[in-house]
Amino acid sequence: MKHGVLGTGMVGQAIATKLAGLGHEVKMGSRTAAGGKAAAWAKAAGAKASSGTFAEAAAFGEVLWNCTKGEASLAALEQAGSRNLDGKILVDVANPLDFSKGMPPSLFVCNTDSLGEQIQRANPGAKVVKALNTINADVMVEPGKLPGEHAVFVCGNDPGAKGRVVEILSGELGWRRVVDLGDITAARGTEAYLLLWIRLMGALGTARFNVGIVK
Amino acid sequence: MKHGVLGTGMVGQAIATKLAGLGHEVKMGSRTAAGGKAAAWAKAAGAKASSGTFAEAAAFGEVLWNCTKGEASLAALEQAGSRNLDGKILVDVANPLDFSKGMPPSLFVCNTDSLGEQIQRANPGAKVVKALNTINADVMVEPGKLPGEHAVFVCGNDPGAKGRVVEILSGELGWRRVVDLGDITAARGTEAYLLLWIRLMGALGTARFNVGIVK
Repeated sequence: MKHGVLGTGMVGQAIATKLAGLGHEVKMGSRTAAGGKAAAWAKAAGAKASSGTFAEAAAFGEVLWNCTKGEASLAALEQAGSRNLDGKILVDVANPLDFSKGMPPSLFVCNTDSLGEQIQRANPGAKVVKALNTINADVMVEPGKLPGEHAVFVCGNDPGAKGRVVEILSGELGWRRVVDLGDITAARGTEAYLLLWIRLMGALGTARFNVGIVK
Repeated sequence: MKHGVLGTGMVGQAIATKLAGLGHEVKMGSRTAAGGKAAAWAKAAGAKASSGTFAEAAAFGEVLWNCTKGEASLAALEQAGSRNLDGKILVDVANPLDFSKGMPPSLFVCNTDSLGEQIQRANPGAKVVKALNTINADVMVEPGKLPGEHAVFVCGNDPGAKGRVVEILSGELGWRRVVDLGDITAARGTEAYLLLWIRLMGALGTARFNVGIVK
């Protein structure tokens, strides 16, 4: 399957590397075609890996992954171009972190709106599924690094797209507990959780943790 | 030990009943001394249980529990009176839920501030410890109702007060995992988590759940 990964940071690298390792064709997109990190990644990741602009990666992928920084996501998706997004699954892994007021970061949108909703509104033809944004990059693609049945959350408006993402998460990525929280407005919950996540990271002394649900 | 429980709702009833059952003297406070629910609770809860105004309950308790609705908390604590709060541990269990815009609720303060901080600023002589606000009332006081080592979060500015609350939680209330998130600004995290909690309640079909930490 063809995947387009938008973003060259830790999250984009982790997801693109995992997907390429699973045998998929993966194009990593960045702001400019000559993007150093995307090209370097593609060179290291093997014959099925390639790099390009956001638009080229979006045009290439059947499933797209928004791994850009939250503050840059809307601009990156505008560069990707609506005709390259229309009808496609867009997995939104970004968080609306605002570092402008110092540490710990706050969120630039929350409570009555979310980045996931902003992305869906700005790209009505895309099938946005918010997922994996509550988990550190290396655990996202290797949940077995942590013990027990910890959880990943998904939400989105298109049931078919969400079902496909659940398949990818529970199948190829190995997640044992995928919790469907409903439509894309549930991104208000999974993004706001970052405010707790940041404090937990401080208290636990590591970003390699997750939550499990007990009931 | 003498406890003052402010609030007569499900949370106040659960905590007051638990503390009375453990043999403590407990006074439940409400807006008016003749408050029907507080008086009814005291009558049912035995010889060491009593009821009164917010001010009477605050004056009575060595440890105070804010179990009022978030939107009413600041007014309730003003009625309790700063001289009745000064120097005391004030466990803040409230959440800043805003139901005015319909369901699901949003928060009337979040992200760059929190109800816990508002309460601490309004009552600088009190030693505010935010705790238990992330958990359904019946599980708060009986964590063994859920399987495994799920977590309760505490935060506050006074280390001694926080340590005493941790003792109560892990001792008398039976919590096996208490996570200290730091100073009272961490209430931004535990209160914002409610936005996820509400979606989880919908997805799981029950309010009787909690999260555990895996790392």
